[in-house]
Amino acid sequence: MKKGLQLACIFVLCFGNIMAQQLTSPDKKFVLVFALQGDGTPVYQLDYNGKQVVKPSKLGFVLKGDKQSLLNQFTVVDQKQSTFDESWNPVWGEVKTIRNHYNELAVTLSQKESNRKMLIRFRLFNDGLGFRYEFPQQKELAYFVIKEERTQFAMTGNHTAYWIPGDYDTQEYDFTTSKLSEIRELMKKSITDNLAQTSFSPTGVQTSLMMKSSDGIYINLHEAALINYSCMHLNLDDKNMVFESWLTPDAKGDKGYMQAPCTTPWRTVIVSSDARDILASKMIYNLNEPNKIKDPGWIKPVKYVGVWWEMITGKSSWSYTNEYPSVQLGVTDFTKAKPSGTHGATNANVKKYIDFAAKHGFDAVLVEGWNIGWEDWFGNSKDYVFDFVTPYPDFNVQELRDYAKAKGVRIIMHHETSGSVRNYERHLDTAYRFMKQNGYNAVKSGYVGPILPRGETHYSQWIVNHYQYAIEKAADYQIMVNAHEAVRPTGIARTYPNLIGNESARGTEYQAFGGSKANHVTLLPFTRLLGGPMDYTPGIFEMDLSKLNPANKSHVNSTLANQLALYVTMYSPLQMAADLPENYDRFPDAFQFIKDVAIDWDDSKYLEAEPGEYITVARKAKGKDEWYLGSVNGYSKRTSKISFDFLDKGTTYIATIYADAKDADFKSNPQAYVIRKVLVKNTSKLQQLCAPGGGYAISLMVAGKGATKGSKSL
Amino acid sequence: MKKGLQLACIFVLCFGNIMAQQLTSPDKKFVLVFALQGDGTPVYQLDYNGKQVVKPSKLGFVLKGDKQSLLNQFTVVDQKQSTFDESWNPVWGEVKTIRNHYNELAVTLSQKESNRKMLIRFRLFNDGLGFRYEFPQQKELAYFVIKEERTQFAMTGNHTAYWIPGDYDTQEYDFTTSKLSEIRELMKKSITDNLAQTSFSPTGVQTSLMMKSSDGIYINLHEAALINYSCMHLNLDDKNMVFESWLTPDAKGDKGYMQAPCTTPWRTVIVSSDARDILASKMIYNLNEPNKIKDPGWIKPVKYVGVWWEMITGKSSWSYTNEYPSVQLGVTDFTKAKPSGTHGATNANVKKYIDFAAKHGFDAVLVEGWNIGWEDWFGNSKDYVFDFVTPYPDFNVQELRDYAKAKGVRIIMHHETSGSVRNYERHLDTAYRFMKQNGYNAVKSGYVGPILPRGETHYSQWIVNHYQYAIEKAADYQIMVNAHEAVRPTGIARTYPNLIGNESARGTEYQAFGGSKANHVTLLPFTRLLGGPMDYTPGIFEMDLSKLNPANKSHVNSTLANQLALYVTMYSPLQMAADLPENYDRFPDAFQFIKDVAIDWDDSKYLEAEPGEYITVARKAKGKDEWYLGSVNGYSKRTSKISFDFLDKGTTYIATIYADAKDADFKSNPQAYVIRKVLVKNTSKLQQLCAPGGGYAISLMVAGKGATKGSKSL
Repeated sequence: MKKGLQLACIFVLCFGNIMAQQLTSPDKKFVLVFALQGDGTPVYQLDYNGKQVVKPSKLGFVLKGDKQSLLNQFTVVDQKQSTFDESWNPVWGEVKTIRNHYNELAVTLSQKESNRKMLIRFRLFNDGLGFRYEFPQQKELAYFVIKEERTQFAMTGNHTAYWIPGDYDTQEYDFTTSKLSEIRELMKKSITDNLAQTSFSPTGVQTSLMMKSSDGIYINLHEAALINYSCMHLNLDDKNMVFESWLTPDAKGDKGYMQAPCTTPWRTVIVSSDARDILASKMIYNLNEPNKIKDPGWIKPVKYVGVWWEMITGKSSWSYTNEYPSVQLGVTDFTKAKPSGTHGATNANVKKYIDFAAKHGFDAVLVEGWNIGWEDWFGNSKDYVFDFVTPYPDFNVQELRDYAKAKGVRIIMHHETSGSVRNYERHLDTAYRFMKQNGYNAVKSGYVGPILPRGETHYSQWIVNHYQYAIEKAADYQIMVNAHEAVRPTGIARTYPNLIGNESARGTEYQAFGGSKANHVTLLPFTRLLGGPMDYTPGIFEMDLSKLNPANKSHVNSTLANQLALYVTMYSPLQMAADLPENYDRFPDAFQFIKDVAIDWDDSKYLEAEPGEYITVARKAKGKDEWYLGSVNGYSKRTSKISFDFLDKGTTYIATIYADAKDADFKSNPQAYVIRKVLVKNTSKLQQLCAPGGGYAISLMVAGKGATKGSKSL
Repeated sequence: MKKGLQLACIFVLCFGNIMAQQLTSPDKKFVLVFALQGDGTPVYQLDYNGKQVVKPSKLGFVLKGDKQSLLNQFTVVDQKQSTFDESWNPVWGEVKTIRNHYNELAVTLSQKESNRKMLIRFRLFNDGLGFRYEFPQQKELAYFVIKEERTQFAMTGNHTAYWIPGDYDTQEYDFTTSKLSEIRELMKKSITDNLAQTSFSPTGVQTSLMMKSSDGIYINLHEAALINYSCMHLNLDDKNMVFESWLTPDAKGDKGYMQAPCTTPWRTVIVSSDARDILASKMIYNLNEPNKIKDPGWIKPVKYVGVWWEMITGKSSWSYTNEYPSVQLGVTDFTKAKPSGTHGATNANVKKYIDFAAKHGFDAVLVEGWNIGWEDWFGNSKDYVFDFVTPYPDFNVQELRDYAKAKGVRIIMHHETSGSVRNYERHLDTAYRFMKQNGYNAVKSGYVGPILPRGETHYSQWIVNHYQYAIEKAADYQIMVNAHEAVRPTGIARTYPNLIGNESARGTEYQAFGGSKANHVTLLPFTRLLGGPMDYTPGIFEMDLSKLNPANKSHVNSTLANQLALYVTMYSPLQMAADLPENYDRFPDAFQFIKDVAIDWDDSKYLEAEPGEYITVARKAKGKDEWYLGSVNGYSKRTSKISFDFLDKGTTYIATIYADAKDADFKSNPQAYVIRKVLVKNTSKLQQLCAPGGGYAISLMVAGKGATKGSKSL
């Protein structure tokens, strides 16, 4: 193939090396070249549609106490190419079937003198590249400690990046959009306050990192299958525009304890000239192992409400009493404590939520603040902070269990750990057993604040190992997990689909902590969501939070229509209607969309997409001839133009369109929405105005089932 | 009281302060004076028989991020004196009843400006002083982090000390005997190799620290009730001969995370002009909380043999195969591995030990190396190193369980953790359940090598907390614990008597690793044993270890008679006969003492004692009119002179005396012993020659039950 040859020649010229291996993607759009430099340093390069997207980039490791390390002096001792093409059906997801189709190059390297073997496995998909390091069993390399992973991603120019600051403890930042060269000057401003945070470099950013080149190529860097390894950040050499992997260190500053045979996670480069392809990419999932949970019938998507937003906004409290400067589990007698009167998780309030959930068809009610320990749970580096089984005196586990069951609603368990990971592990079996005994089948876990054991961080290998431990143990108990403040997902939900959600990004709660950027939700699907669903907790109808709590001056930077659209644009099998029941009661027509919208899908069509600007997606409900469509908009007023050509030919649908009113604005007029019903076919087109921070949502039901009378055609 | 007044006056002169509080011991021999210096610094002083033993010494803490700390600016806001006198019966012990008799002074201090309260509680016994810091619940001080504890022990002169190097990871050192002023120059030489060690100061030593003043006063510094606090070392200001507490730091260098209400462990000063009183002191136990285990009938002293010494000497191995550079639990298939042929814990070998135990009346057989993971268990910082439930293919759990049960013998479980503490905690419930299911009621746990989580050490608060967790959880399962490489005991076995043993010092195994000092066993009872029993594993009959393993050139620095004496001098409810069955078969007459000797006692009489030189003790077997006597000797040949006046008047006993032969010597002629039988009464006296590194043992049975014929009177 002429083009391939030409590329290889360029490569040889660059490196003065004739050992180049070349791999093309199934659709031939991508070409990966692997080579060794003259000193035996492994390098790779990625081309897309005949143009470089990753310039020659080095691969390797600095090892602790090992002068030679795994950086150079390698020779190729074996190389194998192969093709893989298989489809699989996720337990839940955006689509019914996912195709896993790639060409693979596996290069086995041997290092001079040390005779150590290292294999680099490249998989080239039609949507991009994944590669990882593998260390086969060998007597020359059994145990080793990684000081630095030196994987480079050399960019071809000063791209626009949509980035959040690199941090060992949090991803809960707003995105900054800037040129790569501007990251350094914007870093300080981008590091906003968080309850736990540890930044490390003025040009360090997190993955998944979204970029756009000046010639309109979209590039996403992330990782897949992060298992028992530390979370990778990217540090930019902003003179040469070369990113290098920056692993999260442990308490001693080491970055990885390895035992061969073992592998690193996959390093991923998703590329397209069409931003919609980035959103639709399933490459991260494909690079994970298949489902390990046999008979996963107990894993079911969940739409829920919760005793939560009232605490987040400060209207009520997680804690029960203000009487003590600190409390000790097993010592403090809460039955003798004077209640503060602000406790949210009371029997009466939880029943109110259960009633609301039952009335409106929600599956479950999340209840936070039900268990003792919230009086001094944060900021004290407290080891034994929660026991996960002892309720406050005004929360009756059995009574509420029975009440919920009678109403056909589940209560979602809440395990806040306060970052005290050892304590959580000590109680995990007991806590999960308690859940099973009391009818809970899902848990929201939280890791707010600095990690214990002290010296570890949220993203170090030691703690990444913990999150996985908790997921796998939950699977043993048939429990679904929604882990907040855990490491950002990397497609592990393919292997453990009981991981139905993560936070691991700036969620809706920040709208109550001063607000998030109005275009935040046009970036999350390009970044955070590539690794797995987010429990973003949309559905806020009252944007002026002082109406809930006079002391809270925050404003939710979103229109109400935008909030509805999120149920479609922010794919998740776990979706909350986060606002208070009384706020939904004020807007029953808009609330209808939240009640109707599906949470599991047979198909998804990305119709419009530009990071930071807009995303429009249509999804077909699982097993039904119903579609839901969501569109979120950034800061500029915009008209979305879509076609319904994804619909079945010949079927007429009733479209209920929940859109921004003409004068809507996320800041000045967020609750201005209009709802209209129209008939649409697959030939229909729509031009829909979107307010700043706005958007629209559409439900599409097959006509003839009623309510068509009076509807106009689009 | 004139003397007290005089002391107080001296004190006032020293400190220019009139706020002195004075406390005397029940027998009036001790006087404790507490005062505040002019700047509000708390100080104490201890006098014994009218002479200072602790000069005015400061008390306090440096707190993290707190400029004022808890060092000075205190005023006394309350002081209470009280008396306590109560006797209690230990579940097992050296004596049937322990008297807990003290006078107490509780001084409540308040700090200017901060208004923080700190209480210092002094308890003055007839054998010495215990004191601790207490932090009552208060809004001014809820959570705080200790950077340094500044508790001083100001010595009155350049005492002789019997010390081991301060270390965050091990106490497995030989003792050095030197003047305090010589510690610095001898430190380097005293730090011998260990599998995990972290020294911290050229004048840092460990507790319990034994000293002797030039005027013949014996002083011991230690701590009691070390719970959820870091282990205290002592750092010497060798110009002024002032020791200061040196806590073990965590991974971040912090030394204590505290939540009020809380207390520190007790700091202890045991003092006497008679060395025997130090050995007989029960002050450390008295400062611990009473037994918390209800119905402790399942806790029983254990005399055992084990598949152990053969591995320690290198005659056999813990591991099963040499085939792999490393193994992975759940991945490596041991049934397909080629056995090395040296594995010790085989069905056949274990049965041999069970047979031997049954034949000779031992309660149990310890089996190490039974479970998979020993191929790469050490030195790899391996997280998932053992699962504690999966045997090697040649060890059949059920078969051996049934075999042992049929013979009336228990198998003792072995849980080596390799210092991988999180991994152990993750498996603890499963491991304990496995034990109960398979008839095990006792576990030897081990913490060899550097600790995981990395950055923590064997004696940091985080890991001290773990040891306690393991003990308490074992109690829930009615399991007895013998923890090796854990923090040295501080009397916690009073509260949790299922802690039937610890290593936490240089045990017999070092005789196979090059040898220990011949007077080591004359020091352990003055130091390590004050906090609780040690699983010292005595009973070695073959001192030339090359006879077990030609590659092992070690010599056991002890005579055979000395080895017998250890069963009495090294008090423990858990006693091993550590040598191989075939070595006991060679010396059946000497072995008879090991078979006869009791392991639980109604009374103990310390007859002779001098640290580093000799210890002679007689003990009355629990519930029986039998006495056993042991005497261990240091480097100098010596004649022990004892009276049997502790025996009941009018009863004649047959004494079987197992003594060094005249030409015995720990180095040149260790197996030269003589056994003779004589009749003794309470008027009898004995002069018994002890070889260098030697000693003798005596069993005393009431005459008339046979075997008296031909016995001479002493």
